[in-house]
Amino acid sequence: MSITLLGVIAGIFTSCSFIPQAYKVIKTKRTSDISIPMYCLCTVGVFLWIIYGLLIKDIAVLLTNIVTFIPTVIILILTVKYHVQTKLKQ
Amino acid sequence: MSITLLGVIAGIFTSCSFIPQAYKVIKTKRTSDISIPMYCLCTVGVFLWIIYGLLIKDIAVLLTNIVTFIPTVIILILTVKYHVQTKLKQ
Repeated sequence: MSITLLGVIAGIFTSCSFIPQAYKVIKTKRTSDISIPMYCLCTVGVFLWIIYGLLIKDIAVLLTNIVTFIPTVIILILTVKYHVQTKLKQ
Repeated sequence: MSITLLGVIAGIFTSCSFIPQAYKVIKTKRTSDISIPMYCLCTVGVFLWIIYGLLIKDIAVLLTNIVTFIPTVIILILTVKYHVQTKLKQ
């Protein structure tokens, strides 16, 4: 297996990894065990990677981070939303 | 701000993002809202990035992924452990 192919496979695994979590959050509407600081850091980090990909004009950095950004933002928004709803009910 | 510095900051954000989730899981011992497929994909992906970093001898790829690997493995192991314990109780 070529080294580049290994990098591509690694990128696919890490980029797609947030999709099952976003699906679970949408389906169950439960997020109390999910860390809000994690998704704040992650969303900002991935957004910076997208800017970085644009600046260095690297399509691989750009695409993998756009794939990561979408589920990450969904998880962050829903986790904050359900957290606020739970606090308001108390 | 230089483009390289932007990449370094992005890397720090995404690499460290799993640390608050690992801390929350260790502290609360609750993982029912966490997606096991996410952490399977992520752990394998980050492990492949470490191998990739070793093969291309890139210290940045290697270090950032080792920082990500440790909390990711902790989250995966504890999520699977508590999931099995919950199933056995039912």
